[in-house]
Amino acid sequence: MSAASPSAADAGVHADAVQPIVWERTHLRLLDQRVLPTDVRYLDCRTADDVAAAIHGMAVRGAPAIGIAAAYGLVLALRADPGAMDAAFATLAASRPTAVNLRWALERMRRLWTQGADVDALEAEAVAIHEEDLAQNLRMGELGAALIAPGARLVTHCNTGALATGGHGTALGVIRTAHAQGKVAMVYNGETRPWLQGARLTAWELQQEGIPARLVADGAVAHLMTREKIDWVIVGADRIAANGDTANKIGTYALAVAARRHGVRFMVVAPSGTFDLDCPDGSQIPIEERTATELTEFRGQAVAPAGYDAFNPVFDVTPAELIDAIVCERGVIENPTPEAVRALLA
Amino acid sequence: MSAASPSAADAGVHADAVQPIVWERTHLRLLDQRVLPTDVRYLDCRTADDVAAAIHGMAVRGAPAIGIAAAYGLVLALRADPGAMDAAFATLAASRPTAVNLRWALERMRRLWTQGADVDALEAEAVAIHEEDLAQNLRMGELGAALIAPGARLVTHCNTGALATGGHGTALGVIRTAHAQGKVAMVYNGETRPWLQGARLTAWELQQEGIPARLVADGAVAHLMTREKIDWVIVGADRIAANGDTANKIGTYALAVAARRHGVRFMVVAPSGTFDLDCPDGSQIPIEERTATELTEFRGQAVAPAGYDAFNPVFDVTPAELIDAIVCERGVIENPTPEAVRALLA
Repeated sequence: MSAASPSAADAGVHADAVQPIVWERTHLRLLDQRVLPTDVRYLDCRTADDVAAAIHGMAVRGAPAIGIAAAYGLVLALRADPGAMDAAFATLAASRPTAVNLRWALERMRRLWTQGADVDALEAEAVAIHEEDLAQNLRMGELGAALIAPGARLVTHCNTGALATGGHGTALGVIRTAHAQGKVAMVYNGETRPWLQGARLTAWELQQEGIPARLVADGAVAHLMTREKIDWVIVGADRIAANGDTANKIGTYALAVAARRHGVRFMVVAPSGTFDLDCPDGSQIPIEERTATELTEFRGQAVAPAGYDAFNPVFDVTPAELIDAIVCERGVIENPTPEAVRALLA
Repeated sequence: MSAASPSAADAGVHADAVQPIVWERTHLRLLDQRVLPTDVRYLDCRTADDVAAAIHGMAVRGAPAIGIAAAYGLVLALRADPGAMDAAFATLAASRPTAVNLRWALERMRRLWTQGADVDALEAEAVAIHEEDLAQNLRMGELGAALIAPGARLVTHCNTGALATGGHGTALGVIRTAHAQGKVAMVYNGETRPWLQGARLTAWELQQEGIPARLVADGAVAHLMTREKIDWVIVGADRIAANGDTANKIGTYALAVAARRHGVRFMVVAPSGTFDLDCPDGSQIPIEERTATELTEFRGQAVAPAGYDAFNPVFDVTPAELIDAIVCERGVIENPTPEAVRALLA
């Protein structure tokens, strides 16, 4: 697909930027995120099984990016065999069973097929899913950047960039747009233990864009706030409850607590699909805990004694009272409350 | 030297515990901390140069431990050649030029030599430096553990254990004593990026002692405090200003900020030599910043793009207002103020 449009160019999406998901009609090219930042290597996926393997193996990650890749995967399957819908759907859906966007994208595609659409129409739908995600991100970039004053010093966490989405990114999309507007003096990006998505992926995107940036250990951000004025902490979200409480990558809550102490504002950037209005508040959001070896080993090398236990939650919840603004493609909620969330999403 | 004494045994120092510094009279055995936790391997140092190389190469680390090792290094030099004081002093002092305890221990030894003491007297002095450090730690262990109620759930950071000292440890010494008193339900130890002393060393010591413990990412501790009741965060100190502001390993301040939000008490454990009364408050403590590659590489492998910059401070400062108790061998300062610090140290 062509990601370039006049508004995309304005927002800092360069035609020559590396694209993590490239639809070539006969195949899907996926930037292999497992070998970043040392290697820039693409996987060519020619079948739905190839795409499912790339998702399962985390060559492509980030909830929106996974959904987009899966939609293209269905197109590859149906081009080869119009009877392949059920099998391809099942394979792709199982590739990351907890990713909400993955199932959402697959169901959107299957609904159209059930209604009698042909493969060309499904291909157009996959491209639409991709373009809609990018358009949402560009819109959030504009809305979020409008909150940022020139000379801004920003902190971000994890990877919320083009690599995790259909392009541009969510929180990193706001930073990208603000940079294109000449507003960004410095970005500090947290390394994001234990997976180091900040060090590996966000640092790579920031370097590609030429945005002034420095890596920082997650535990050093509070100290950083004592040494210089930080204007905003800007993060993504995995789920937002009806009252604005926000689940995001582990480490986010600690940043919010430090930000409040230092008068640093805190921005959450996520498309409206991230809201879960059936979830009244953050206490109802389940927090996945993962294996100790993600902390006790690094690339197969032991960094802690064999058999040592670990507390390894993947997400944490930042309460709405610590959030100054939630930016979604429909608008901005300042000082989120259940009423303000309902009003924006109505 | 023999570390065992009745009070040592009471405090949880087992005769069969691994000793990081073992004086064998003809040589000094140092536990090689670079290969922990996967290997338990000793270096036999037979000359002052051997000891200096072990300090410079960080086979032995922790300010008190370095001072003790250097004192024994002087004894090895003088046994081989009574004219070697100046050269051995210079070599050992240069092995970690910023470590205050190193210079303090060497000067204490040289003063005695200048006063006409013989090598046997210097050997006794090195043993005394070692034993005094252990005795201080055992005393701090008792004082700190007295603040801890049974069933305690504790958080610690970095390594402040037997490995960093003459034995028992400072903050980890308090935890060790509290465990010997049957008070410890769980210790969460932060991995302590970027050097992972928590994962590599503290986890190893906790496992050796059979203390119930789990590793946690530095950025996950604030979240942990939302999930269960933590009673104390217990940390060491590299320098304490006259008003109680405390410099310690990077990440400590973020823990203190989170602890205050959650009503978790915060204890600093350090011998009285750690106070710097010439330093009125934490703003006067210089904070060393180190090379970006400590964050951008892991054991020689790139984890961030080549050439990416990083903000990599080694220490941070926790203001006295966030500290509930400073424990040193002379007593406990609760809610530290300049007056309370002066009163204890007078």
